Amino acid sequence: MAKERIIIVGGDAAGMSAAGQARNLLPDADIVVYERSGYPSYSACGIPYYVAGLVESKDSLLVRTPAEFLERQNIVVNVRHEVTDLDLDAGRVTVRNLATGAEFKDGFDKLLLATGASPVLPRLNGIEADGVFSLGVLETGIAVRKFIDQRRPGRAVVIGGGYIGLEMAEAFACVRNIKTALIDRAPQVMSTFDPDMAEHIAGAIRGIGTDLRLGETLLGFGTEGGGVRSVITEGGSIPADIVVMGLGVRPNSELAERAGLKLSVRNSIAVDESMRTSHPAVWAAGDCASTTHLVTGKPFWVALGTVANKSGRVAGISIGGGRAALKGVLGTAMSKHCSFEVARTGLSTREAEEEGRRFQSVVIKTKTRAGYFPGAENMYVKLLAEEGSRRLIGGQIVGGQGAAKRVDIIATALAAGMTVEELVDLDLGYAPPFSMAWDPVQVAGRELLKKV
Amino acid sequence: MAKERIIIVGGDAAGMSAAGQARNLLPDADIVVYERSGYPSYSACGIPYYVAGLVESKDSLLVRTPAEFLERQNIVVNVRHEVTDLDLDAGRVTVRNLATGAEFKDGFDKLLLATGASPVLPRLNGIEADGVFSLGVLETGIAVRKFIDQRRPGRAVVIGGGYIGLEMAEAFACVRNIKTALIDRAPQVMSTFDPDMAEHIAGAIRGIGTDLRLGETLLGFGTEGGGVRSVITEGGSIPADIVVMGLGVRPNSELAERAGLKLSVRNSIAVDESMRTSHPAVWAAGDCASTTHLVTGKPFWVALGTVANKSGRVAGISIGGGRAALKGVLGTAMSKHCSFEVARTGLSTREAEEEGRRFQSVVIKTKTRAGYFPGAENMYVKLLAEEGSRRLIGGQIVGGQGAAKRVDIIATALAAGMTVEELVDLDLGYAPPFSMAWDPVQVAGRELLKKV
Repeated sequence: MAKERIIIVGGDAAGMSAAGQARNLLPDADIVVYERSGYPSYSACGIPYYVAGLVESKDSLLVRTPAEFLERQNIVVNVRHEVTDLDLDAGRVTVRNLATGAEFKDGFDKLLLATGASPVLPRLNGIEADGVFSLGVLETGIAVRKFIDQRRPGRAVVIGGGYIGLEMAEAFACVRNIKTALIDRAPQVMSTFDPDMAEHIAGAIRGIGTDLRLGETLLGFGTEGGGVRSVITEGGSIPADIVVMGLGVRPNSELAERAGLKLSVRNSIAVDESMRTSHPAVWAAGDCASTTHLVTGKPFWVALGTVANKSGRVAGISIGGGRAALKGVLGTAMSKHCSFEVARTGLSTREAEEEGRRFQSVVIKTKTRAGYFPGAENMYVKLLAEEGSRRLIGGQIVGGQGAAKRVDIIATALAAGMTVEELVDLDLGYAPPFSMAWDPVQVAGRELLKKV
Repeated sequence: MAKERIIIVGGDAAGMSAAGQARNLLPDADIVVYERSGYPSYSACGIPYYVAGLVESKDSLLVRTPAEFLERQNIVVNVRHEVTDLDLDAGRVTVRNLATGAEFKDGFDKLLLATGASPVLPRLNGIEADGVFSLGVLETGIAVRKFIDQRRPGRAVVIGGGYIGLEMAEAFACVRNIKTALIDRAPQVMSTFDPDMAEHIAGAIRGIGTDLRLGETLLGFGTEGGGVRSVITEGGSIPADIVVMGLGVRPNSELAERAGLKLSVRNSIAVDESMRTSHPAVWAAGDCASTTHLVTGKPFWVALGTVANKSGRVAGISIGGGRAALKGVLGTAMSKHCSFEVARTGLSTREAEEEGRRFQSVVIKTKTRAGYFPGAENMYVKLLAEEGSRRLIGGQIVGGQGAAKRVDIIATALAAGMTVEELVDLDLGYAPPFSMAWDPVQVAGRELLKKV
């Protein structure tokens, strides 16, 4: 019998997690990865910190080299190879070697699409100028770092007030000491947060001297000699020696769509709990694939490293013939801007309203440590719970050091379907350097109990 | 109809939490608190930090003064008043005014015993010497701080390697720069941790220069002119200008026992979920009362500020005629020694063995942040799960900054009765400054999955 052959399209978190799991279960299979970029399996979330210089070498972001994958796990990783077409019924993919331009076909028994997501790029004048970057793959991060180190830009503009925007503004303003502006078309930063919580984030951004411009639409870029000189918005012109865009991403599902695979929300690839697509020999995982929202039970799409790792693991086990399921996710995410931490999980107010939920919410202001303990900083906790069932449906936390990781309490409670009472009853850790006797999340729960 | 009269014996966390809750529900009742010490409602857990000088003023530890309780909530708090006897059938308590020595009787409709716990004190030569302290109430903390400030001791000995011992050793060694020895009769520090995890804690204690002496039994104290000069153990004599003992506490249940109330484990006062004792008009809460262990379902006793606050709240609601229940606790506790954090929840290996559970455990070594992120420190996570059901039964975490509060993930999972798979599936927060893409707790879960 011929050896089973598994082809994985995309060698980042999801693809390589899957490859590893499949290898554990199928010691004899051929496992072949095609990765478009020059690097497999790096920490994309670490790119802003590499740009900042907090992470010295790009090698630190690389989990393993292709040679290591081959040697340790007998996984063949072909970088700079782009899969350009899928023939699912024939069990074949068309691959282009980006170094040589040569095209060839490769056959599979099982196929995993882990093609990731790509930055949304507006068609604007000057977007191709030198000094304008759109963060996505590691290569771009390397280019931004090189640009900063060589050109020493004095003025940076970050476009988009989401996670990447926040982290890039931190890199410029807090680490590189570059005069920084952050612009966003929306009236608030961090659209996955409620406006009242985003207001605190905006305060923190402004508090460290970043020129935050909300509700300002990007029109284009002023250039000179091929290099960017300014960012042009409806509000005017902002001088810029370097521009980084973080306008969100969209799933890379074109190959899947052309091959006739079923798509789901936001054009992500539709999958079941084992990450199997509408074709029985094809799986999808990571930023290109759909998942389920644990609170709504509906299809959901979010591009996050955590989800990529989890869905890749599940896909790999399933491909290997084992049993695993990704029941769903909560959109749990966190970030920080200089010393200000932010985190969210579950439904925001807007999402809960869109779901037509009857719910109550509460925001409390408290401290990251016992109030009397040195270094206690302000923090805010917002909790949302359904009326009637009194079940938690979401939460957001912003504040000083130690604030954000408490989102895990809420995320765990959401996964368990806990009510507000059950949250308040939790036996959580306490010592004055870390908390008050009632954890801030429980203080919010006690307030919410009065409303639901 | 006469106003309902509620008497609360003990005005610390449990008593004052209950008083506040009862006041919310019973606006017209007389609520009278008798507190033996001079201070109601202070943060006992903050005492080591006040001794260290990290908390400048003792007033910071006081939540409210008696005058504030009277003014804001119409709660009468009598400090320096000791309840010396209970006549439950007559509905009367005997009270001694410690300032005047006068005794009087006071009648109640409902009674709450929140008498706390007292330090265990061995009968040893020299224990009454000047400079030997046993941490418990705020007055002792004030005396220790005064002793340090006035006498400037050069050598400190801490007896007992539990939470208070660890925190006092931190106060002496890390904050006050006093040459410090820590001795414990047991072969490990922190008896609620497994030996392999306690080993890391011991390493951290020794790492900052504290002379840690384990398996060394205390025999007495060498004194000179009424002041302590040394600590005498089986291993020899250790010079000491100041000695602080933290040998554990026992519940103050003598009054309850004499009054015929049923006792539970470790002589704590037996209560139901609403913190009501075996007498229908009497409740007990805080360090003097029993509770239920959420994992074993059995009576359990632990003296912790979190439990005192929670059980006091429940008792107050119940006294006020409302519905509340403390389903149980997990013995979740945390502390730190200089920059080394420790936390535990649920069953330890010893406790699981005593329960006769079939279980597996795993310890992983990992980092507090993404490995490439500056400031990432070592951390260790231990997880215990039952064979067969694969349910989590306990967890312990030790390590650098940010390690310990992750115990809340495990505590929440334990309260929800989660399996190891469900822990691994959790959608937890991630960003490189805080975590790896798989939270350390989940990394441990993935290892444990291989065993259960």
